[in-house]
Amino acid sequence: MTTYNKQNFPVEKVRKYLEPGPVALVTSQWENQTDIMTLGWHTILEFSPSLLGCMIASMNLSHELIRNSGECVINIPTVDLIDRVVAIGNSHGDEIDKFAVNQLTAQPGSVVKAPLIDECFASFECRLHDGALVDTYNFFIFEVVKAHVDPALTLPETLHYTGEGLFRVMSDRLLDRHQNFKPEMLI
Amino acid sequence: MTTYNKQNFPVEKVRKYLEPGPVALVTSQWENQTDIMTLGWHTILEFSPSLLGCMIASMNLSHELIRNSGECVINIPTVDLIDRVVAIGNSHGDEIDKFAVNQLTAQPGSVVKAPLIDECFASFECRLHDGALVDTYNFFIFEVVKAHVDPALTLPETLHYTGEGLFRVMSDRLLDRHQNFKPEMLI
Repeated sequence: MTTYNKQNFPVEKVRKYLEPGPVALVTSQWENQTDIMTLGWHTILEFSPSLLGCMIASMNLSHELIRNSGECVINIPTVDLIDRVVAIGNSHGDEIDKFAVNQLTAQPGSVVKAPLIDECFASFECRLHDGALVDTYNFFIFEVVKAHVDPALTLPETLHYTGEGLFRVMSDRLLDRHQNFKPEMLI
Repeated sequence: MTTYNKQNFPVEKVRKYLEPGPVALVTSQWENQTDIMTLGWHTILEFSPSLLGCMIASMNLSHELIRNSGECVINIPTVDLIDRVVAIGNSHGDEIDKFAVNQLTAQPGSVVKAPLIDECFASFECRLHDGALVDTYNFFIFEVVKAHVDPALTLPETLHYTGEGLFRVMSDRLLDRHQNFKPEMLI
């Protein structure tokens, strides 16, 4: 298994990893319960404060743990973890310890109590910023309060879910068009 | 330029194309003004009704046109359109006709007044469903009311923005794990 050397990363730049739309693994903790869930329905909302919007259905144990704790960690897996991602998305945290069953390593966060996943190259510690749309849409607005990324992984092969059990994989093709941007748009 | 034969597509399945996180081109119209803008901050919110959440900053002419009309079309470009995508994201609709300048073809929608972009393989006609978070976060919740997709393009090479003028490109690698899903999760 690949191991990562995650370092502090500017929270206002997490769009670099989230805006391309990867499947994420969300970890949460409340009292003596911990959970991991898969997340594909997320969007950046603001650079600073660093805001994310995430749809977390109420059928997930994570929904309850995040509502109670007001915290979570959003971890980004790469393609080598696909079978664990699928197993996590198809099991319920009430019944099993998702870390143990999936051979994932919990690392303590530095700001929130929810654990980081060691086997993911990026982990973003989040605090609930606005729960106004939780009741109507299960939509949580988080602030990323601390970001950890392995800078050695410049073009991570992330997973992108399309439904029906089918995943696409991000290529290593990077197109640089910064010279065609207005300077004020280069954020 | 590639031409597409877009056909009716089930609105409850648009996650197939949006959940992977591509850059989109949003078209809007109000009275005698039309605009196109680039959109990277979007998420699926619900299958049925088919709901999307989109962050559309108030500096865009599109923000005003969509607020006034309550409608837009979300079009998905492929990598061959990258230079037009960049040009659209770096110009203002008040000053130019973005269709003419970028040699894009407007096609009438069947439900909304905003035009579809002929050069995009997928176009989703949207109506504003909930504007509760527009004032605070510029966050629009739309319902997809009609979807048009060219079914021949099974693995579109979409663009995924990472900031700083850099785009990643989706690969043609598709991993099928449907056999490891619980039947009720295969939506």
